[in-house]
Amino acid sequence: MTGRFITFEGGEGCGKSTQIRLLADRLRAAGREVVLTREPGGTALAERIRTLVREETDDPPNARAETLLFLASRAQVVEAVIRPALAAGRWVLCDRFADSTFAYQGYGRGLDLAELKRLNAFATGSIVPDRTLLLDVAPETAAARMRAREQATHASADRMEKAGGDFHARLKRGFLELAAAEPERFAVIAADGDMDTVAEMVWNSIRHML
Amino acid sequence: MTGRFITFEGGEGCGKSTQIRLLADRLRAAGREVVLTREPGGTALAERIRTLVREETDDPPNARAETLLFLASRAQVVEAVIRPALAAGRWVLCDRFADSTFAYQGYGRGLDLAELKRLNAFATGSIVPDRTLLLDVAPETAAARMRAREQATHASADRMEKAGGDFHARLKRGFLELAAAEPERFAVIAADGDMDTVAEMVWNSIRHML
Repeated sequence: MTGRFITFEGGEGCGKSTQIRLLADRLRAAGREVVLTREPGGTALAERIRTLVREETDDPPNARAETLLFLASRAQVVEAVIRPALAAGRWVLCDRFADSTFAYQGYGRGLDLAELKRLNAFATGSIVPDRTLLLDVAPETAAARMRAREQATHASADRMEKAGGDFHARLKRGFLELAAAEPERFAVIAADGDMDTVAEMVWNSIRHML
Repeated sequence: MTGRFITFEGGEGCGKSTQIRLLADRLRAAGREVVLTREPGGTALAERIRTLVREETDDPPNARAETLLFLASRAQVVEAVIRPALAAGRWVLCDRFADSTFAYQGYGRGLDLAELKRLNAFATGSIVPDRTLLLDVAPETAAARMRAREQATHASADRMEKAGGDFHARLKRGFLELAAAEPERFAVIAADGDMDTVAEMVWNSIRHML
């Protein structure tokens, strides 16, 4: 058995975290060893970088600093977590990866996509996911899920989540364009439905890899 | 009067911090407004990034993550501090800048120099110092100064300072090669002498810019 690298992408409130957990359970039930990680985050250093990019302060990172912080976190996780797990034959499920940089900092913040791809290649040593699941939801679905999460956790939205509606519209378009450009890697999943329906679509999009 | 951007470079123990303070005093005495900053650091975010790259932990940044963290700090400081100060006609004196990335992460850690220059251009929007003062000292001078500093401050060397002798030899060679490649920007100052002698050389290398 060889390792597989699967990334989940999508805007805030698309249901990634839930679907990753469900897929991990199903893969484990199928006898696979699974490693879960998230971006930014995934090592002690990367979690500290996560705090820097997400919290609200008087000195928030500008677009370039934000990009470089996300990439620093990714460089650390690729070397410390992802490559060793794949080499050991594990399945790595990652909550966000390079496509989030292209969507958020490229389409969202307006930085040059070709430049972001070069920077990402430096950070990752050009590792590419075997499969990327884009959970695409209507803006109303995303907004309702984020409200529900805020109520459930009593936590208010963080700096990334609070970006305006225009930003989220650019993100959504960005993710769809990225997916259209690499149809063999991406599966676009209409994720407005209930959890189990979406989980079935996720499973169907990766079962051929078992 | 237009602003001037002057950077100080050199290995650990070369005397940069002292010489920057002395030059700032002299420039102020000559009627110039002076802004001092340091890398990594210089804004609240950048100082927090400084902690991440310098402290010793169980999860130290790998070479690529380290590079990206330094660049994130630089991106923030260029936009928040350096460009506004230059636009207001101030003199900006910076303790380390892009050449430290080329020397430490390029010559020191072995990352590709051309790639580092592209990354740096992204972080800085290609701003280049008007003058870069490389304080070059013999390894024995650097070692003696670092020992004296540790005794004076009761602080032990941090992660960057503790790199081995080979690393420091590559650094020294790297800085000298960078200086040789851009003789119009760099002034190489033999900084083994006493504080006042070196300060006089520093002053002579920038007084034509007044």
